[in-house]
Amino acid sequence: MTTSAAARQQTPSGYRILNEADLRLYLAAIPAVAGQLGGPAERWTIVEVGDGNLNLVFIVKGTTGGLAVKQALPYVRLVGESWPLPLSRAHYEHLALSHQARLAPASVPAIVHHDAALALTAMELLEPHIIMRKGMVAGTIYPAFVDHITTFMARTLFFSSDLALSAAEKKEAIASFAGNHALCKITEDLIFTDPYRVAEQNRWTSPWLDATAADIRADLDLHVAISRLKLKFMSSAEALIHGDLHTGSIMVTDTETKVIDPEFAFYGPMGFDVGAVLANLLMAYFASAGHERTPGDRQAFEGWVLGTVDQVWNGFAGKFLALWRSEATGDAYPLSLFPGDAGAARLETERQAYMARLFQDAVGFTAAKIIRRILGLAHNIDFELIEDAKQRAVCEARALRLARRLMTETASFTSIDAVTKAARELREWQPEF
Amino acid sequence: MTTSAAARQQTPSGYRILNEADLRLYLAAIPAVAGQLGGPAERWTIVEVGDGNLNLVFIVKGTTGGLAVKQALPYVRLVGESWPLPLSRAHYEHLALSHQARLAPASVPAIVHHDAALALTAMELLEPHIIMRKGMVAGTIYPAFVDHITTFMARTLFFSSDLALSAAEKKEAIASFAGNHALCKITEDLIFTDPYRVAEQNRWTSPWLDATAADIRADLDLHVAISRLKLKFMSSAEALIHGDLHTGSIMVTDTETKVIDPEFAFYGPMGFDVGAVLANLLMAYFASAGHERTPGDRQAFEGWVLGTVDQVWNGFAGKFLALWRSEATGDAYPLSLFPGDAGAARLETERQAYMARLFQDAVGFTAAKIIRRILGLAHNIDFELIEDAKQRAVCEARALRLARRLMTETASFTSIDAVTKAARELREWQPEF
Repeated sequence: MTTSAAARQQTPSGYRILNEADLRLYLAAIPAVAGQLGGPAERWTIVEVGDGNLNLVFIVKGTTGGLAVKQALPYVRLVGESWPLPLSRAHYEHLALSHQARLAPASVPAIVHHDAALALTAMELLEPHIIMRKGMVAGTIYPAFVDHITTFMARTLFFSSDLALSAAEKKEAIASFAGNHALCKITEDLIFTDPYRVAEQNRWTSPWLDATAADIRADLDLHVAISRLKLKFMSSAEALIHGDLHTGSIMVTDTETKVIDPEFAFYGPMGFDVGAVLANLLMAYFASAGHERTPGDRQAFEGWVLGTVDQVWNGFAGKFLALWRSEATGDAYPLSLFPGDAGAARLETERQAYMARLFQDAVGFTAAKIIRRILGLAHNIDFELIEDAKQRAVCEARALRLARRLMTETASFTSIDAVTKAARELREWQPEF
Repeated sequence: MTTSAAARQQTPSGYRILNEADLRLYLAAIPAVAGQLGGPAERWTIVEVGDGNLNLVFIVKGTTGGLAVKQALPYVRLVGESWPLPLSRAHYEHLALSHQARLAPASVPAIVHHDAALALTAMELLEPHIIMRKGMVAGTIYPAFVDHITTFMARTLFFSSDLALSAAEKKEAIASFAGNHALCKITEDLIFTDPYRVAEQNRWTSPWLDATAADIRADLDLHVAISRLKLKFMSSAEALIHGDLHTGSIMVTDTETKVIDPEFAFYGPMGFDVGAVLANLLMAYFASAGHERTPGDRQAFEGWVLGTVDQVWNGFAGKFLALWRSEATGDAYPLSLFPGDAGAARLETERQAYMARLFQDAVGFTAAKIIRRILGLAHNIDFELIEDAKQRAVCEARALRLARRLMTETASFTSIDAVTKAARELREWQPEF
């Protein structure tokens, strides 16, 4: 372990868990923060609202402005002190958020204040934004989402890759996130391992999915595929990825899209972020049938979701390629090897081939992200809020069926059309329970 | 840049370039070293013999023992102060050598003393070992080489990979070598870029290879292939590789094989080390015709070399697989996903598939290492000592022809047999000059 990383694993001296009263005193002493909130500190409202799994989150409102204040706890909030988790994640989250704010400022909350010792970050309060997943459960369409999320992904991934950075800058960047391995380990276990074996924390909609879960625990082709994806996650340092880019990490209004919570960030495979977005859209699609009040009342929503799957990939690929064509300042694919018109044409062909390989990665990771949400520890409200458990299981079984095909027949999905077509065909499929 | 890496880029205070007299005083003050050399310091013989491109190398002999002392200079020795190169490389070399000494102690010189401030390492004096490349130019057969080098590669690569390390250990290990980017940059430029474009430092056996060099500078399929290999070199953190594993970095006797000079070490693709060994054997094979005194007098040597190419891959693969079967303590391919006889069989099939992918990488890197030695800055004595320039060009043209095939038709080389067969077929090929 490097000295800096080792130091960051310790609880910093000066760390203490804040309650509302502590936070009021703390914020009042920071002129920039107090100025932004406005009015006397004793009139600020401070409410702890953290409904996430890991951290404290306070909403602070003054007379002229509001803030969201996030403080990491030295353990997993959902579980308690028996599951310790290093405070250093607040450092990596702040580092990743700073990177994203520089490259896609409209896509993330503005950072107002960061305190390394307290593992605390104060950010712009996102109002009236809601968690995108909640909106999608309600059947809300977000027409601006595609443009925003594809800009976010294309810019944050491209500009941290070998296509934009020198090899030296990239190696230093990899090193600066290498200490975030406790968070990576959560992904390695909960996404890439546990759903495929007997694990205490696994759960699923029983008894209907018992047989499917058992099938997946016995499907050795699937186990090879997930193991290859896990190895890619651990050894392909392609770009600084968000690492947890699901629709619960995205806050939206009709016109704005903000990505939050990059505490899982590290240098990993780009397809993991892209797959996270695709997977969560596909799960919203399959869950939608379970949220119908009258047959067909969510048809427009479902059409929008599948169209969005399509456009997320195509939009991302288009923007990423455009950046590569105009801002390729990195050491990979040096332009001097592709001179003249013939060189430009050959490089363009290779760019398309590169995107085709990235698409294959994204398809695999999409499948991994679906399976873990249905058979693993962490589920999502898309499915969980379907009250009729059997109906929920039907929706989940359709998603699992798609995921297994995506993971074991990845090479046959050569375009995003093939993915949405397969999803559409499963919309009416009835599993035999 | 991380703090520790930034610090290491500076010239440490206390650094000074040593001459023979300085070194005598310095070593005499270190009891362990003085004891190993034996006798009074004034009777030690100290000779600077560095014939490498980068560093000072002193041979020190006392009455009871000898040492090789390597000191890094803050610039490339071959070129001078106009090409600065960080002293930190001595730190990374020592770190890599320590890793190798732990895993393959018989394959590297024992470390006697390391001084970080002076960028200096004192090692076991290898006597009567000679640089393997010199022996091969002379037509010497090294029957123990295959077993030794395959053990070295299998153990150093396997035990630094995700198959042996936890993901956390691996990330920390990646970070600990990330600062060695100045040395990586040499590889990125001189191997993966310059030979494929007009570059001041390129040279080749002119005029005979002018047309071939121009062809290679115009071959866009080759440029795509080398760019993919370069990207893999920069972004695939598979294992701690030696990074410069040619036959000039190997010292041999009939019974011993010692790998030296791991200053290019970092976390990169395993195939790069394997390809380096294969490429340098293949170049020795093609150069051999140029060293004949009477027709056929090197037939036994050439047969041994091609057999060795074959056995290097097969021996490496066999040992790597054996380690995977018995010492898989890493986070990749968890055994819990492959239970029972069926699981074991499926995992074994996947191990073979993994090796087939690694072989493809090795084939590509083999080609890259051949091309750079014939068209780039750094050449090797296998070819350079062929006095008749035209005959040298014939040998080099054969090697280049194989390399182009290996790089652009990589997928068609599915076994090492296919590589040695193609090499053998080119032995009598006459280029049209």
